[in-house]
Amino acid sequence: MRRWNGWGDDSDIFALTDDARAFVRERVGDGVPSTDATREQALKTVPESRVKSPLFVTDAATRLDRSRGQSFPDWIAMRSGRMGPYADGVAFPTTHDEAAVALAEAKKIGAIVIPYGGGTSVVGHLNVPAGDQPVVNISLERMNKLLKLDETSMLATIGAGTPGPQVEALLKPHGYLLGHFPQSYEYSTLGGWVVTRSSGQQSYRYGRIENMFAAGRLVTPRGELDVGGMPASSAGQDLREAVMGSEGRFGLLTEATVRVRRLPEREDFHGVFFPSWEIGLDAVRTMVQSDVPLSMLRLSNEIETETQLALVAGHKTALTWLNRYLRLRGIGQGACMLMIGVTGSEIECNHSRHRALDIAASFKGAHVGRFMGKAWAKNRFRGPYLRNALWEAGYAADTVETAINWNKVTPLMRAIEQTARDVLGKENEKVHAFTHLSHVYRQGCSIYSTFVFRSTGNFEGDYERWRKLKSRLCETMVEHGGTISHQHGVGVDHAPYMPAEKGALGMDLIRAMAREFDPQAMMNPGKLFV
Amino acid sequence: MRRWNGWGDDSDIFALTDDARAFVRERVGDGVPSTDATREQALKTVPESRVKSPLFVTDAATRLDRSRGQSFPDWIAMRSGRMGPYADGVAFPTTHDEAAVALAEAKKIGAIVIPYGGGTSVVGHLNVPAGDQPVVNISLERMNKLLKLDETSMLATIGAGTPGPQVEALLKPHGYLLGHFPQSYEYSTLGGWVVTRSSGQQSYRYGRIENMFAAGRLVTPRGELDVGGMPASSAGQDLREAVMGSEGRFGLLTEATVRVRRLPEREDFHGVFFPSWEIGLDAVRTMVQSDVPLSMLRLSNEIETETQLALVAGHKTALTWLNRYLRLRGIGQGACMLMIGVTGSEIECNHSRHRALDIAASFKGAHVGRFMGKAWAKNRFRGPYLRNALWEAGYAADTVETAINWNKVTPLMRAIEQTARDVLGKENEKVHAFTHLSHVYRQGCSIYSTFVFRSTGNFEGDYERWRKLKSRLCETMVEHGGTISHQHGVGVDHAPYMPAEKGALGMDLIRAMAREFDPQAMMNPGKLFV
Ligand SMILES: Cc1cc2nc3c(=O)[nH]c(=O)nc-3n(C[C@H](O)[C@H](O)[C@H](O)COP(=O)(O)OP(=O)(O)OC[C@H]3O[C@@H](n4cnc5c(N)ncnc54)[C@H](O)[C@@H]3O)c2cc1C
Ligand SMILES: Cc1cc2nc3c(=O)[nH]c(=O)nc-3n(C[C@H](O)[C@H](O)[C@H](O)COP(=O)(O)OP(=O)(O)OC[C@H]3O[C@@H](n4cnc5c(N)ncnc54)[C@H](O)[C@@H]3O)c2cc1C
Repeated sequence: MRRWNGWGDDSDIFALTDDARAFVRERVGDGVPSTDATREQALKTVPESRVKSPLFVTDAATRLDRSRGQSFPDWIAMRSGRMGPYADGVAFPTTHDEAAVALAEAKKIGAIVIPYGGGTSVVGHLNVPAGDQPVVNISLERMNKLLKLDETSMLATIGAGTPGPQVEALLKPHGYLLGHFPQSYEYSTLGGWVVTRSSGQQSYRYGRIENMFAAGRLVTPRGELDVGGMPASSAGQDLREAVMGSEGRFGLLTEATVRVRRLPEREDFHGVFFPSWEIGLDAVRTMVQSDVPLSMLRLSNEIETETQLALVAGHKTALTWLNRYLRLRGIGQGACMLMIGVTGSEIECNHSRHRALDIAASFKGAHVGRFMGKAWAKNRFRGPYLRNALWEAGYAADTVETAINWNKVTPLMRAIEQTARDVLGKENEKVHAFTHLSHVYRQGCSIYSTFVFRSTGNFEGDYERWRKLKSRLCETMVEHGGTISHQHGVGVDHAPYMPAEKGALGMDLIRAMAREFDPQAMMNPGKLFV
Repeated sequence: MRRWNGWGDDSDIFALTDDARAFVRERVGDGVPSTDATREQALKTVPESRVKSPLFVTDAATRLDRSRGQSFPDWIAMRSGRMGPYADGVAFPTTHDEAAVALAEAKKIGAIVIPYGGGTSVVGHLNVPAGDQPVVNISLERMNKLLKLDETSMLATIGAGTPGPQVEALLKPHGYLLGHFPQSYEYSTLGGWVVTRSSGQQSYRYGRIENMFAAGRLVTPRGELDVGGMPASSAGQDLREAVMGSEGRFGLLTEATVRVRRLPEREDFHGVFFPSWEIGLDAVRTMVQSDVPLSMLRLSNEIETETQLALVAGHKTALTWLNRYLRLRGIGQGACMLMIGVTGSEIECNHSRHRALDIAASFKGAHVGRFMGKAWAKNRFRGPYLRNALWEAGYAADTVETAINWNKVTPLMRAIEQTARDVLGKENEKVHAFTHLSHVYRQGCSIYSTFVFRSTGNFEGDYERWRKLKSRLCETMVEHGGTISHQHGVGVDHAPYMPAEKGALGMDLIRAMAREFDPQAMMNPGKLFV
C-alpha cells in the first residue's frame, strides 16, 4: 500500500548501507530521529465534515490521504501527525461530465475546490486553507482510461488522473510511449503534469509536458473550455498556455490529448567523467548547441558525483577500479559525472552516441561505458525512497530547482550551495548540499540541488530550519535571474517570489485570467498567486 | 524604392513568360486588366490630420505609405487608390523609452494606436478604423539595432522593427543566424513576426518564431511588461504567450530577445518526385515522425507541381528531360514534388540526407538531385513578385493557409480547392487553385493554397469575388477542424472565425487579457477579436 506519510509502497524499503550512514554522519553529524505519529493518531485529528452531499466521500481516511503533498512542510506535518486542515469531502468523478457535476455541486454548496491528481506536489499545491468555508477535493484518480488513439497523427487522449506507469501501460500494447518520466513518475498524473508544467528526466528527447500537451478539456466554474487540437496556429493566444501552469485555479483538467511516439528500438545510458565541473558544463552546452539528438544529459557536480558513488553506486570493488581508471585518465579530485541518454532507432542511436562521445572526448571526458548508466536507469525513480531512509536515521532532506541561461549557471549553482551552508552555519549546523543539471536547452539548463541536514527531532524546529533555508534559497535564485521553478510549479511555497519573475502587470494579468474562469474565487485559493 | 501599391522594389520586375501567360489563360480565361490609380491620385485622398503633436509626422505620403498591408482588400484598395481611412500621424521612436513616450502621448491626446512593423500583414491587421477618434501609427522601423549578444547562451536582443535581411545582417558578422524566413522576409519585422506568431520556410529546423522568442519588452497603456528570459519555467503562465499573437492589441513590442544559431556549414535543397499526393504525404509524415533532422519539407500537390514547372521552373529542354526521366521511373500524371532542405554540419547533413532519401525511395520517390532545389532556393522569396505580374495581366491572386492533423490533411486540402472552384463556378468563373504543405509537425502540417482568378476590372467586383471566396474558404477550414490561421494571424479578415476555434469562454479570456493591458481599448481596435 502507498505510504500515508512518506514516499512509495510501504513494502518497498530503501536501506542505508553502513558506508552510506558513515558518509552522511561525517558530512553533517549524528542524526536526530523523531518519533513519528501513527496513522491512528493522525486520523483522530480529522474533524467532522461540513458537507453533506452524496457526491462527496467524507470518511476520515479518505480525507486524510488527500490532505497533503510531498513538500517539506507536508512531510513533517505527516510525520508529526499534524496534517490538518482537512478537506470536508472528496469526489471521485469517472467521466468529464461527472467532473462537471461535481464542480457544479461544490459551487452550489459554496465549497472551495482543490483538484487532486497524484498528490506528489512539492510546493504546497494541495494545502487546505483554514476558514469557515467548506473545502472539497475533486480527485481525478478514476479518470484513468485511454479514450482515443489517432495513430496517424500520433495523438492519444487520456483521462487526466492517469499516473505515469499507467499512461505507459495504456500506450505500450499499441507500440507507443509518451516518454514523460519525472522522478515522481510512479504516482504523479497526466493532469498534474500539465497544470504544473512538469518536466521529465528525458525532456531533451520527449520535451517538457508543454511540448506533449496537444489539447485538453477544462471544466471551470464558468463552463467548459476546450483548448488546442491543431498542430500549430497563429490565431491569437494559444489557450493551452492558460491551462498549463494553472495549478487548479482555473478549473479541472479532465482529459488531455498528448503527442506520443513509437517505442524506441533502443535505449542506453552512458557514463562519462570530466576532470571538473566547468569542463563538463562546457561539454554539455556544446552537445546541446550542436543539436546532438540525445534523450538525456545529466551532469552531477563534484559533490553530487562523490555522494552518488558513496550512497547508491553499490559494489566497493567496482568503485575502486573506477577510481583507478579515472586517475589513469587524469581525473581525480573534482571529477564530475555526466549521464548521457541515447534513445531511438539503431541508426539514430549510433549517430548520436558517436557525436556525443566525440564531443565528450574533446573535453577530456572519460567514457566509462554503460555499467554506470545501467545502475542509474535501474535507480532512476529511487531517489525519493532515500528520503524515507534518511528521515528514519534522523536526517531531513529537501531540494530546490531552477533554470537559468548558460552564462549564469555556475555562479548560481555555487551560490545556491553556499547559501544553504551559510544559513544553517549560523546555527552551527552543517548542510550537505549537492547539485546536478538535468534539463538542457540551447539557451540554458535547469539546476537541481539537494540538501541533507540534521533533523531537530520536532516539528517546530524542523519547520524553522526549512523556512530559513527555503526563503534564502528562493531569494538567491531570483536575485541571479533564475526562474522560481523549472519543474515543480508555484503552489504556496513559491508564490511570494512570483512578482519578481512576472512583474506587477504580469501578476495582474494572471489574476485577471483567474477571475475570468472563476469569478467567485472558489478554485484552489492561495496557490500560484496571493 | 519599395512599391507603394504592390510587392517589392519597383526596379524589380517579374516578367511573365509567354508560356506562363498561355498557361494561366488556358486555366482561367483571358485576363481583365484594371487601370491602377496613380500615387498622386491616391495622395489627394489623404485628409488633413487631426493630431497636432510634434511626436507625430503628419504629411500625406508618410501616412499613405503606412495605411495598408498586403491583404487582398488592401491590394485592390491600393490599386484603385481608395486607401483610406488614414492614420492622422506616424511616430518613429528609436528606443524603448521613446516608444513609451509616443504611446503616452497618444493616450494623452485620446488617439487610437496602430503599431506598424513592416506592413506585410495579409489579414487587415493595419486597417485604420473610421470614426471620430484620431488614429496614430507607431512605427518601429527605426528600432533596428542589435542591442545585445550573449554568445554563451546564444541569445540576441534586437530592436522589434528590424526587417528580416537586417536581422541576419546584424548576426552574420558574429557567425550566427536566426533562420526565420517567411516569404515576406524582405520587409516583415521581428516584432511583427512575434505578435502574429509567424512561421518561416525552414521552421522544421529553426522553429516557429514562437520557439525563437525568448524574451521581450512590451509597452502597454498600463505600463511596461517584461516577459521571458529563462530557458524554461514551470512558474504559472508563460507571459511570452500573452505577447505572441497579441497583434498590437496589448501594446508595443519594442525589443525582442531571440535564440540564435551558429551559421550552418552547409545547406542543400533536394527535389524528389512522388507518383501521387497520397504517397508523397505518407513519405513526408514518415520522415517527420521518424525525427529525421531536416530543415524543410515542402510538398506540392499535383496542380502546384504542374504550375510551378509551367510558371517558374525555366528551361524548356531541362523540363523535357525531367519529364522523360520521371516517366522512366513510373511517375507521370499526378506527380507531386517534394523539396527537402538539409542544413547543418557536414556530418549532420550526410546523416539527414541519407535517412530522408532512404525513406523517399521506400515510397517510390524519384530523387532528381539538387538542380530543382537550387532553382527553388533562388526564387524562395519571389512568389509575391508574381502577384504584381499577374495583376498587370488582369488576374487576381490570393492565398489561404491553415494547419490540421495528419489524418485530415487530404480531405481538407481537397475541400479547400473544390470550395474555391465551386464559389466562382457559380458565376461561371474559373479558379486555378493549387496547394502545398510547408510546415510539418509530428502531429500534422500546414496547408497553403493559392488561387488565381480573373480580375473584374473594378474594385467592387473584385472585392465581391474575394469576399465570397474568402468566407466560404474560412468556413471550410473551420468545419474540418483546421485552424483559422497557421501563420498569417487574425487581423480583421479572420476575426469572425475566432470563436469557432477558441470557444465563447476562450474569447472572453482573450478580451479580459486585452482589458488588463488596455482598459480604454486604444490599441488596434477591431483586430484579433470584435
Ligand atoms: C519525489 C518527487 C519527485 C519529483 N520529481 C519531479 C520531476 O522530476 N519533474 C517534475 O516536473 N516534477 C517532479 N515532482 C513534482 C510533482 O510530481 C509534479 O508537480 C507533478 O506534476 C504533480 O502531479 P500530481 O498528479 O501529483 O498533482 P498533485 O500533486 O495532485 O497536484 C498538483 C497541483 O495540480 C492541481 N491538479 C492536479 N491535477 C489536476 C487536474 N486534473 N485538473 C486541475 N488541477 C489539477 C492540484 O490542484 C494542485 O494544485 C516530484 C515530486 C516528488 C514528490
Ligand atoms: C508576400 C507575403 C508573404 C508572406 N509569407 C509569410 C510567411 O511565409 N510566413 C508568415 O508567418 N507570414 C507571412 N506573411 C504575413 C506577414 O509577413 C506576417 O504576418 C508578418 O509577421 C508581419 O510582420 P510585419 O512586420 O510586416 O507586421 P505588420 O504587417 O506591420 O503588422 C502586423 C500586425 O502586428 C502588429 N505589430 C507589428 N509590429 C509590432 C510591434 N513591434 N509591437 C506590437 N505590434 C506590432 C501590427 O499592429 C499589426 O497588427 C506574408 C505576407 C506577404 C505579403
